[in-house]
Amino acid sequence: MSRPEFAVIGLGTMGAALALNMADKGFDVAVHNRSAARIDALVENAGDLADRLTPAKTLDDLVAAMKGPRAILLMVPAGQPVDDQIAALLPLLDEGDLIIDGGNSGFHDSERRAAAVEALGKRFIGLGVSGGEDGARHGPSLMAGGSEEAWERAAPVLTAIAATYEDEPCAALLGAAGAGHFVKMVHNGIEYADMQMIAEAYGIMRDGMGRTPAAMSDTFSQWNDGPLRSYLIEISAAVLKATDPKTGNPMIDMIVDRAGQKGTGRWTAIEAQELGTPVPVIDAAVTARNVSARLEERQRGADRFGEPARPLPDGAVTDTDLESALIAGKIVCYAQGFAMLADGGADNGWELRLADVARVWRAGCIIRSAMLDDMATALEQAPDTSLLMAPFFADLMERHVPGLRKTVTAANGHGLPVPSLSAALNWFDMMATSRSTANMIQGQRDYFGAHGFERTDEEGTHHGPW
Amino acid sequence: MSRPEFAVIGLGTMGAALALNMADKGFDVAVHNRSAARIDALVENAGDLADRLTPAKTLDDLVAAMKGPRAILLMVPAGQPVDDQIAALLPLLDEGDLIIDGGNSGFHDSERRAAAVEALGKRFIGLGVSGGEDGARHGPSLMAGGSEEAWERAAPVLTAIAATYEDEPCAALLGAAGAGHFVKMVHNGIEYADMQMIAEAYGIMRDGMGRTPAAMSDTFSQWNDGPLRSYLIEISAAVLKATDPKTGNPMIDMIVDRAGQKGTGRWTAIEAQELGTPVPVIDAAVTARNVSARLEERQRGADRFGEPARPLPDGAVTDTDLESALIAGKIVCYAQGFAMLADGGADNGWELRLADVARVWRAGCIIRSAMLDDMATALEQAPDTSLLMAPFFADLMERHVPGLRKTVTAANGHGLPVPSLSAALNWFDMMATSRSTANMIQGQRDYFGAHGFERTDEEGTHHGPW
Repeated sequence: MSRPEFAVIGLGTMGAALALNMADKGFDVAVHNRSAARIDALVENAGDLADRLTPAKTLDDLVAAMKGPRAILLMVPAGQPVDDQIAALLPLLDEGDLIIDGGNSGFHDSERRAAAVEALGKRFIGLGVSGGEDGARHGPSLMAGGSEEAWERAAPVLTAIAATYEDEPCAALLGAAGAGHFVKMVHNGIEYADMQMIAEAYGIMRDGMGRTPAAMSDTFSQWNDGPLRSYLIEISAAVLKATDPKTGNPMIDMIVDRAGQKGTGRWTAIEAQELGTPVPVIDAAVTARNVSARLEERQRGADRFGEPARPLPDGAVTDTDLESALIAGKIVCYAQGFAMLADGGADNGWELRLADVARVWRAGCIIRSAMLDDMATALEQAPDTSLLMAPFFADLMERHVPGLRKTVTAANGHGLPVPSLSAALNWFDMMATSRSTANMIQGQRDYFGAHGFERTDEEGTHHGPW
Repeated sequence: MSRPEFAVIGLGTMGAALALNMADKGFDVAVHNRSAARIDALVENAGDLADRLTPAKTLDDLVAAMKGPRAILLMVPAGQPVDDQIAALLPLLDEGDLIIDGGNSGFHDSERRAAAVEALGKRFIGLGVSGGEDGARHGPSLMAGGSEEAWERAAPVLTAIAATYEDEPCAALLGAAGAGHFVKMVHNGIEYADMQMIAEAYGIMRDGMGRTPAAMSDTFSQWNDGPLRSYLIEISAAVLKATDPKTGNPMIDMIVDRAGQKGTGRWTAIEAQELGTPVPVIDAAVTARNVSARLEERQRGADRFGEPARPLPDGAVTDTDLESALIAGKIVCYAQGFAMLADGGADNGWELRLADVARVWRAGCIIRSAMLDDMATALEQAPDTSLLMAPFFADLMERHVPGLRKTVTAANGHGLPVPSLSAALNWFDMMATSRSTANMIQGQRDYFGAHGFERTDEEGTHHGPW
């Protein structure tokens, strides 16, 4: 075998899967891990692909085994380990060599690292990777940030291992160094919101309609044949269908209702506040996870207030209404996410093309869906317009907002919490309001703090007669 | 006159008012400002109080004119100016002298500055000041963070100038250095939410009931005689009553509906995410300001979707329902704010006594209200319990949630946006739910990412049979 141009450092679940994916696509790959056991395990379990793997016990061995210009993918835990690994590598690399950080890094860190690496004549890409282990092994969605030169070096392997949508690879250079991890962060925020809205629909069916998991699974399966077709709807059907091997009960009924998070949804909510971009559907989804974590407090609340009356009157919400609610909620959530991408791109000086982002998300990642292809088309036609106002989606909203409205009011009327769907409806109504109530807030602010306000009939800053 | 022990540096609106307030209470005060014009203006306009003011053209003069141990209040713009001023002062001060930062600083900065100042043998207090110019002049709410020793030095002047509630001063040491600015930040988040919920009630009356500003002013005035009695309700009545001198129209109708913000509400939302404390009513209020700022986009939305049908059927929401909605929404908002204080206190190792915070907020600050006295009592009796579960407030919730529910569903049913009231209702229903829908989210997370979940019948982390 020839000397590899590519390497993977960090052979955990994701790193090992990506190395095998590269080998599978015909690339020779040098592989290294801090503890050697993982290197051996990878090679031993690689089968036919072992020939394409060059194990390296040390960084020196790794660099020496490779042909330049090298492209080295780091798959180590985000934070200090990435900085440590970069610091250890830099003295060993030649000018023009490329370091790709494929971890779950914050985009500010990627901007900082790119500047430091490039100042030394080497190259850097911050790479958002989505799709879990299976995606990493057979086709992830890859969101890259870096220079054109860095991308040219990385593109052959990254586009080869990525998922494809109608033969187009779901891997692209989206902007400068931090852009890839920024896009991945927004992806994760949207993921939280998609999941929360599905959970809310599940709650309405479970508590409002008294449905069994099997029946709900069928409903999700049907939705997966329509406009909602997506990975998350598909796996929701699967989760609801699964039987607990231990008790024979539906698996879903045995799972504690306390949601975890690794923090990336929270990052999205925080960065949206920093940018001033409204993403209330994502905010509500992150918050709902935090509320769910307060299980004992919720139990005390239920004891004190009695569970709110939950059953819905027959026909108060139909399956069609629920489907509409999820469609309209999804469009709102993505409109907010893409607005955040636009604001983040402008704020950081990246030339983020929103249509490219939509294309990269069409396959390989957790939020992959049929609708993303329509979004790519809409954003291609009108890159500067809110998704809400793109003709295709505005028409969908017109058709499906009534179902969202019916669902939210029925649920809220009967004590069924729907924080994200409700945030979607309130945002839509705010965005369709030319005369909001913020004049009251401006009046109050001027009254107590002399902050001033704009007048409807005159330029400048004015004060009230108080 | 004797040599002053106290000084104010930075004689903008707030600094000048606080210096006069100190003089008014019998303290001699040295005063300094970078541009001397403001020093002269302050002394010239001080009338009888001029005798108590010692103008100082330079920091050296200021320090030399004072008697030790000195207590110097900085009222300069937050950020670098505070650091610059501290750096300039430190070499001139003696051991035991005290610097008080009364600006709108981030609490992390106050923690950092206290450590740096104390390492040099001087003292530091981070002081949250609320009440606007009028409060500063005649009685602000003062939220202090620092050591007991620093507080002993500052307490005579700070308690003397503070607002009082039934003769108790609204000034207190709330915890270590950052605690004062942290509490001020949460105060501002609550202020945003209080204002937003009032604006939502205004919107329902204006667009849903077709009320005139004069009629709405009367309604707010009536509410100000009941459980909602508060400064913000009072000034809302005043804002609605005011006539524009220029056009003779109601002033409120001439104000552009694009709300500004100085960022402290945003800080609250961000810090709550960092802590993992759900504050959805505050989140929604900050977001509503951001949405209001997108005026052109809203106008395009209104053109495309038509303003949603707004008028409510007669009697769909009564004034009593609206009052209930504001009462329940307010309790939820404060329950979230105090939960954030508890989490922030624990996270930062402050011994934050929530009842003390409620007491300090009873007068002088923007969110002052009758209800805060009841909150102080409730938090005194059960410091570790959510305000929602305190018997007095749980009873109020039981009585007023039906009106909140009726208001939110009617508004959402007719296209009237109520993002904060809606977030309050959804949070209440979540907190009164022993079996939420987060099991679906945990199922999905385990399905796609093998994140594991807890089981209802067994300890440990488990995976599904997928």
